[in-house]
Amino acid sequence: MSWLDFFRGRRAEKGNAPLAKDRLQIILAHERASRDGEDFLPRLQQELLAVVARYVQVDANKVQVNLERGEGMSTLAIGIELPAKPRRNAAA
Amino acid sequence: MSWLDFFRGRRAEKGNAPLAKDRLQIILAHERASRDGEDFLPRLQQELLAVVARYVQVDANKVQVNLERGEGMSTLAIGIELPAKPRRNAAA
Repeated sequence: MSWLDFFRGRRAEKGNAPLAKDRLQIILAHERASRDGEDFLPRLQQELLAVVARYVQVDANKVQVNLERGEGMSTLAIGIELPAKPRRNAAA
Repeated sequence: MSWLDFFRGRRAEKGNAPLAKDRLQIILAHERASRDGEDFLPRLQQELLAVVARYVQVDANKVQVNLERGEGMSTLAIGIELPAKPRRNAAA
């Protein structure tokens, strides 16, 4: 499943389901000019989720992660189903 | 310019330019079930960039940000042109 399928799938799913929910989708794509480049996306993932959790409540059971590694590009797609009301106690 | 155009445009540009560079692209899409939902993407932006900067050198002049706000969805697209060699001193 590519990151585009991931995104499109979620949109389509929303269309079919009458119960609309807030969702946050994060897609990272790292294009590497050479194969020597470090693939840091997996390590970024946890830190990104920690940042997001300062703004909205994140239930670990409502997080989908899809990592794809190719020769020239790695993609990390994170889909988060959000509660209706976001938290407002984020650091200023 | 939608976030998809942003992404595709960068890919197309790469195809035309023989000088390949490392790039990191971050796309956030926040689907809101109601119009009351808080739009926190702009505030997330700086924190996300700070996280990324712990893994790779980020030159502020090489960062493109595109924020689109719609009724049901906001998207934030960040494109970063990376130096060839990423930093490795990220927090464990």
